[in-house]
Amino acid sequence: MFAEIKGLNEECGLFAIWGHNEAAQLAYYGLHSLQHRGQEGAGIVTSDKEQLYAHKGVGLLTEAFGPGDIEGLKGNHAIGHVRYATAGGGGIENVQPLHFRSEDGGMAIAHNGNLVNYQILKGDLERKGSIFQTTTDTEVLAHLLKRQSSTKLRKQLHAALPQLIGAYAFAVMTETELIVAQDPHGLRPLSLGRLGDAYVVASETCAFDIIGATYEREVAPGEMIIFDESGMHSSRFSEAEDRALCSMEYVYFARPDSNLDEINVHTARKQLGKQLAVEAPIEADVVTGVPDSSISAAIGYAEKTGIPYELGLIKNRYVGRTFIQPSQELREQGVKMKLSAVRGVVEGKRVVMVDDSIVRGTTSKRIVRLLKEAGATEVHVRISAPPIIRPCFYGIDTSSRGELVAANLSIEEMREMMGADSLSFLSVEGLKSGIGRDESQPNCGQCLACFTDQYPTAIFNTKKELVTVGMD
Amino acid sequence: MFAEIKGLNEECGLFAIWGHNEAAQLAYYGLHSLQHRGQEGAGIVTSDKEQLYAHKGVGLLTEAFGPGDIEGLKGNHAIGHVRYATAGGGGIENVQPLHFRSEDGGMAIAHNGNLVNYQILKGDLERKGSIFQTTTDTEVLAHLLKRQSSTKLRKQLHAALPQLIGAYAFAVMTETELIVAQDPHGLRPLSLGRLGDAYVVASETCAFDIIGATYEREVAPGEMIIFDESGMHSSRFSEAEDRALCSMEYVYFARPDSNLDEINVHTARKQLGKQLAVEAPIEADVVTGVPDSSISAAIGYAEKTGIPYELGLIKNRYVGRTFIQPSQELREQGVKMKLSAVRGVVEGKRVVMVDDSIVRGTTSKRIVRLLKEAGATEVHVRISAPPIIRPCFYGIDTSSRGELVAANLSIEEMREMMGADSLSFLSVEGLKSGIGRDESQPNCGQCLACFTDQYPTAIFNTKKELVTVGMD
Amino acid sequence: MFAEIKGLNEECGLFAIWGHNEAAQLAYYGLHSLQHRGQEGAGIVTSDKEQLYAHKGVGLLTEAFGPGDIEGLKGNHAIGHVRYATAGGGGIENVQPLHFRSEDGGMAIAHNGNLVNYQILKGDLERKGSIFQTTTDTEVLAHLLKRQSSTKLRKQLHAALPQLIGAYAFAVMTETELIVAQDPHGLRPLSLGRLGDAYVVASETCAFDIIGATYEREVAPGEMIIFDESGMHSSRFSEAEDRALCSMEYVYFARPDSNLDEINVHTARKQLGKQLAVEAPIEADVVTGVPDSSISAAIGYAEKTGIPYELGLIKNRYVGRTFIQPSQELREQGVKMKLSAVRGVVEGKRVVMVDDSIVRGTTSKRIVRLLKEAGATEVHVRISAPPIIRPCFYGIDTSSRGELVAANLSIEEMREMMGADSLSFLSVEGLKSGIGRDESQPNCGQCLACFTDQYPTAIFNTKKELVTVGMD
Amino acid sequence: MFAEIKGLNEECGLFAIWGHNEAAQLAYYGLHSLQHRGQEGAGIVTSDKEQLYAHKGVGLLTEAFGPGDIEGLKGNHAIGHVRYATAGGGGIENVQPLHFRSEDGGMAIAHNGNLVNYQILKGDLERKGSIFQTTTDTEVLAHLLKRQSSTKLRKQLHAALPQLIGAYAFAVMTETELIVAQDPHGLRPLSLGRLGDAYVVASETCAFDIIGATYEREVAPGEMIIFDESGMHSSRFSEAEDRALCSMEYVYFARPDSNLDEINVHTARKQLGKQLAVEAPIEADVVTGVPDSSISAAIGYAEKTGIPYELGLIKNRYVGRTFIQPSQELREQGVKMKLSAVRGVVEGKRVVMVDDSIVRGTTSKRIVRLLKEAGATEVHVRISAPPIIRPCFYGIDTSSRGELVAANLSIEEMREMMGADSLSFLSVEGLKSGIGRDESQPNCGQCLACFTDQYPTAIFNTKKELVTVGMD
Repeated sequence: MFAEIKGLNEECGLFAIWGHNEAAQLAYYGLHSLQHRGQEGAGIVTSDKEQLYAHKGVGLLTEAFGPGDIEGLKGNHAIGHVRYATAGGGGIENVQPLHFRSEDGGMAIAHNGNLVNYQILKGDLERKGSIFQTTTDTEVLAHLLKRQSSTKLRKQLHAALPQLIGAYAFAVMTETELIVAQDPHGLRPLSLGRLGDAYVVASETCAFDIIGATYEREVAPGEMIIFDESGMHSSRFSEAEDRALCSMEYVYFARPDSNLDEINVHTARKQLGKQLAVEAPIEADVVTGVPDSSISAAIGYAEKTGIPYELGLIKNRYVGRTFIQPSQELREQGVKMKLSAVRGVVEGKRVVMVDDSIVRGTTSKRIVRLLKEAGATEVHVRISAPPIIRPCFYGIDTSSRGELVAANLSIEEMREMMGADSLSFLSVEGLKSGIGRDESQPNCGQCLACFTDQYPTAIFNTKKELVTVGMD
Repeated sequence: MFAEIKGLNEECGLFAIWGHNEAAQLAYYGLHSLQHRGQEGAGIVTSDKEQLYAHKGVGLLTEAFGPGDIEGLKGNHAIGHVRYATAGGGGIENVQPLHFRSEDGGMAIAHNGNLVNYQILKGDLERKGSIFQTTTDTEVLAHLLKRQSSTKLRKQLHAALPQLIGAYAFAVMTETELIVAQDPHGLRPLSLGRLGDAYVVASETCAFDIIGATYEREVAPGEMIIFDESGMHSSRFSEAEDRALCSMEYVYFARPDSNLDEINVHTARKQLGKQLAVEAPIEADVVTGVPDSSISAAIGYAEKTGIPYELGLIKNRYVGRTFIQPSQELREQGVKMKLSAVRGVVEGKRVVMVDDSIVRGTTSKRIVRLLKEAGATEVHVRISAPPIIRPCFYGIDTSSRGELVAANLSIEEMREMMGADSLSFLSVEGLKSGIGRDESQPNCGQCLACFTDQYPTAIFNTKKELVTVGMD
Repeated sequence: MFAEIKGLNEECGLFAIWGHNEAAQLAYYGLHSLQHRGQEGAGIVTSDKEQLYAHKGVGLLTEAFGPGDIEGLKGNHAIGHVRYATAGGGGIENVQPLHFRSEDGGMAIAHNGNLVNYQILKGDLERKGSIFQTTTDTEVLAHLLKRQSSTKLRKQLHAALPQLIGAYAFAVMTETELIVAQDPHGLRPLSLGRLGDAYVVASETCAFDIIGATYEREVAPGEMIIFDESGMHSSRFSEAEDRALCSMEYVYFARPDSNLDEINVHTARKQLGKQLAVEAPIEADVVTGVPDSSISAAIGYAEKTGIPYELGLIKNRYVGRTFIQPSQELREQGVKMKLSAVRGVVEGKRVVMVDDSIVRGTTSKRIVRLLKEAGATEVHVRISAPPIIRPCFYGIDTSSRGELVAANLSIEEMREMMGADSLSFLSVEGLKSGIGRDESQPNCGQCLACFTDQYPTAIFNTKKELVTVGMD
Repeated sequence: MFAEIKGLNEECGLFAIWGHNEAAQLAYYGLHSLQHRGQEGAGIVTSDKEQLYAHKGVGLLTEAFGPGDIEGLKGNHAIGHVRYATAGGGGIENVQPLHFRSEDGGMAIAHNGNLVNYQILKGDLERKGSIFQTTTDTEVLAHLLKRQSSTKLRKQLHAALPQLIGAYAFAVMTETELIVAQDPHGLRPLSLGRLGDAYVVASETCAFDIIGATYEREVAPGEMIIFDESGMHSSRFSEAEDRALCSMEYVYFARPDSNLDEINVHTARKQLGKQLAVEAPIEADVVTGVPDSSISAAIGYAEKTGIPYELGLIKNRYVGRTFIQPSQELREQGVKMKLSAVRGVVEGKRVVMVDDSIVRGTTSKRIVRLLKEAGATEVHVRISAPPIIRPCFYGIDTSSRGELVAANLSIEEMREMMGADSLSFLSVEGLKSGIGRDESQPNCGQCLACFTDQYPTAIFNTKKELVTVGMD
């Protein structure tokens, strides 16, 4: 849904619960609240201590799970996953949690993030005789675990995780234990909560709210939390680096009702809008936001400037997989998809259009045109984040550098390309102060690589060699 | 969707197009933008001058129409309908347009509204030998038309429509003509537009915007517009009464991007919120609206009072037919459906919760509790319309009078019942001034019957006798 | 299924049950055994004395009814129908039982057969103000009933049925009574049975066997049987003409395990094969039948001639709606559909291919070629019925006269056209003696119109005028 | 379908085609004709030399493949599979062809048969670090191949196949070659054919007939046939043992129009019936067969004894997955499923009921009762194979030994249990002579282990140890 508008896609959401007699059902609702993180596949694996039970399907959660599917998922422990699939990788075999069966028992793995050295590790493993049945980077971890000398899962993870470079939040479950782990930079969000006596772990806290769980704390960078019969145990598989939580989670991905590191997402976005008003004010009649993710920033911008906030753009709901697409001819004749401008609001007005990011610029261009066709006399584009000049290697499906408009055009060129009357971006400093993480404290850093080219881990250079590019 | 939250339901949306070579496809997109007016059935009938073609199905438009269904709908003329079905009436046979075949040719009818004297007319017709295959009031019109001496559709309508009492916007199509008609009070909205050489008619102007059509004017009370080979002809089948456009369309039903009688719905709602701020101010920390329909009013309230507007409530999307409902036990344990409160926004705050109407009061009660459980210290409920004290007989599925909480409790009793710290409604005068129809002008009245007990037409008394209750 | 092979199609099967607490479920199984009589729609209507409940759907019974649909059909009384739809008439609105609702109560009608004067009656009714929502001839009866002065269903039927000309077995149900009726010639089969205290009526006795009911007797020509609270009552709405039971039911349509007028269908077919052996013997190595309906006749032919019966042709099951059809190119390259010849059986052999009828001759031609391509040295076609030279007006979808090959070619020309080494048909006398109805007894006549041009009722001439063509 | 009646299930059918520009479509039709060998999953993998394309789904072929699925399967080479899944193993991940991806390219494997030493091999592989994602024995081969030092598929197979014990027909495909292999005893059928310039391989020759291909020869025991750019190459990976083709393929599994080792299945079955008539004649009025697989034997029995063959039992078609099952109560009241006795044929008659095998005996018992309830005065059961006294380890899902009725009861006890008037089985010698393989010739042996306890390979003893039990 979001994906189609933005060309900027999160890869996946995680949910895990340990010790509740309705584990599968709660996983279903938890995943439901994480649906915005991935709409192309969903799965749940449960354990009743004796055996693992799995159900997975392509599409939305409501498409992947039919009546009766939940009942088959027995036991008090569950992990679940919603998947965003990059082009070509949408087969059912890639839907997570991945589920492996051996003579000694089963194992299920769910993963949010992206491993930078995935292809190197996969090549090594194949040369040693491993065969891969999925095209996910996640399967690499399963093979690494299997090849450890220990048969204890926690020891296998201690040995395997340090071999991985990149972003990862993992949930791994066997019949008798559940382990979640966060990469040493804590690039992807992962929170711990309680629901009565049960433990819950989720990519976003909105999954706690929907099931009535309470928030406890973040899973720390380099931390591994083990849940087993004797309760919960924390362990460290790596020296923690300074936290580098993805700042695009605040700007665009996370649900406004989630808190990330205890900062509410809506509130952060509204602050970004206010900061943007300070940095790039303009004289205008109405402020409008591009739904859904830019609404909060637009409200902040309006509040700070005193220009009235209005619903100048409407998103057409229900434009799903089964929607019959208009012919090219009709599209050219003006049949609208996804977004409509509200003529009654923008006609004859100078409009500030607040958006949260520009990737290829084509969507922004289309929206400016929509507003002008609906009678806006001026359209001032205000972006509540800095220009995206570098691709992400940590699980966000941004386009390659060649497609990133801000990597190739000046701001004035972009303004002209999209036909706006003015265009401004938030500064990197403005982004940091708007989000409001106290970077003087430990574990409060954030990843800004797509804005700054400062990657927190080694990455690949253009020759596909792994290079070390430290964060300063 | 909306229906499930409110217990206040619109019955149906209409779309018609005359003279476009992609008539069926345009009807599909037009209906798509009217989906909020009915989600339980959808249909399109087209004409290629020789024959009518029909496709109908239950559920959302995207469920009722699959790939290929549009192609079968040949011809340049189309009428379409989305249906909201009251309990028990959800069969496929009731999905509109109704489609009749006779040796002389076919006829299709789509209807938005409700006929007050439907059962009386039906009884008469049955005694004369008519048999009914649907349980819709719409079928009555078909029988009345058939029983006229003339074989010309426009003459049949001239004779039949004056027999109907109630609210109706009709689109009737044969192989060779399309006629739309509006009841003498103009209770339901119906607008006329142009798309190149083609004519379009729709329940709301958002259907024009989505297909790139331009607005022309409203279909007038008591007017019948005929489209045939020689173009468009206006005719009057009834002396127009003063217009009595349903005010709940502004308050709740219509899409914010639609204009009703040239007043934008979002703008009207925002004005209602401002007016409410004048009538019922309060000291508080945040203003939040109940999504989706109350957002505009909440923004208006915030703007006027200067209290910041925040996303304090989030609607869970995708809660459709195929969603697996939580068990009663889980529901009691706090599994949220449809709406969640945003803890990060409301915790420790005094919250103004703006909603647009209260029907049974149970939803409001639940939302107040949600907000308090999420940490709101005070919840002040502000309703951007007057109390609903009477049922609607014109096509809105409000509850019966016994279920209308405002018909049975005082405002203080309601406040206590829902656990709010304060509760205020907009006054009837405030509603009128907020919407801003200039009632001194002709055709600018509005129906306020559900707030005032002043019905614009005769209605039935409790003994099911038709009584005349004039509007003053 | 059968339909696709033959181009000769039955229109519909009926089932009714009165007074069983699992009425809907039994109707489902009864209809299941009648599935061969119609695969394009299925429906059941039940009554619990207070109300009628209906469920209908397109396609096979298993497609039209999903889990849960049966439970909604409350009450102890049910009528059901499986429908074969002629081209263009396959909409859901035509699926039976038709279901009408009036202020006085509901009515459901199921029909097997075809009314010869349907269009005349429909024209009359429309001129009097009736409107039709289906394109079935069945709806005419509903209108005729409604226009009677009496409000009692049995009186309405007494008055209305004599206006109908043609073939009909009807089941009509209101909340409180069920009436079945058979046309004065008894053209279509209709049997009465018992299941404990309950009554059952079905188009074929195989529906009794599947539910464990016992056969009682045939519904007589011109008879109406009324089931109500006080039990079963027989009544006569017409002087019975001599019975004219469709002989194609024996030859082709009915299931081999059904009895028609107490003659087993398989046994009759085997007798036809024996009679054919007497009339048209041939020297050959193997006898094979065209599956499924000609198997019995082939066995009879083999038994009489002493030539071994073999499976020389195999029907490909599962070739349903969802089967992906081969491209024209592949078809020409020899990809087989529906039927395959068994090389291991026919190679190098002189083959007698027994079939039960020839309509357009194209299928026979294709089968002869299949057998020859599989190595048969000679193919002798033997048809266990006389040549079809006239269309049926009583509910069998034979082609028009122009398409009937036997109406246009001599037997030698047909043989040549289909590439057979010899071709023989059974004589009309042979057909009669093979079936073995004792025509000297009352009610034991049969309709042979498609073989003899002697129609038992008035029919239309080519100018669409009704003409009387008596049976001699 | 068959599976539900018998409790005796084949595991899978294979199809492969090399060098045809409609490879996927032909695989679809080929698999369609093999549908009787497995109804729980179907899949096709194709290669266009650059890449493999896969589509798989659960259920029947027509359920697993929708419109459009075939188009996505590009290229001129294909392998396909239909799967019968034992209880608990029905997940999509087990549907074949299994499809593996590595950095070096892809590989797909389809398998018919069962590996006796599967668990031993799997345990070894897991100890060396392999992880398994399916519960099929087929996956073992993939891991064995991957662990060979060579990277050439044919060399990997040469090294890996000799490690397998049991029954297997394999088709393995990479982007550039297709290899089929048959186990050293040739336990499962596998035939080679031509279609123009293309090569085809299938489990049964009926798959050749349906696509118009011509039969060439059997794939020999211990033979591997390689298809690549340079054509077809035969190679031997093992000294061939004497052929031990499964005799139950003749008796029960294969389609009657298939030839196995050039012996037609229908003809063999008819011979078994004739032989049975010689060994176990009886005085009776009618012979009937249990549909579908026993029809040929019944015809043979009738032909030899001179007792007329009749359709005494009818199979209810369409009893598929979506069929609503009758309640226990209705079942007890006599609602029939799957099979009905034809009263008109058996009433008052002495019936010979020919069946091809008895597994648990419960189905036979039910059929005897059906016939007696339909009025048969005597029921003589004749089985056209010897008693099954041992389970199969080679891919047939017979019950365990404890459930095999003939392993636990004498023939007289069985007769009494099933309520028959007499019961006879064919002798082992009769079976051999009926099928008619010339055992004096090389490669003409057959596996009779389930009748004789003489297994052609090592098997497991009850302690799950592998033991060598030679064939004498």
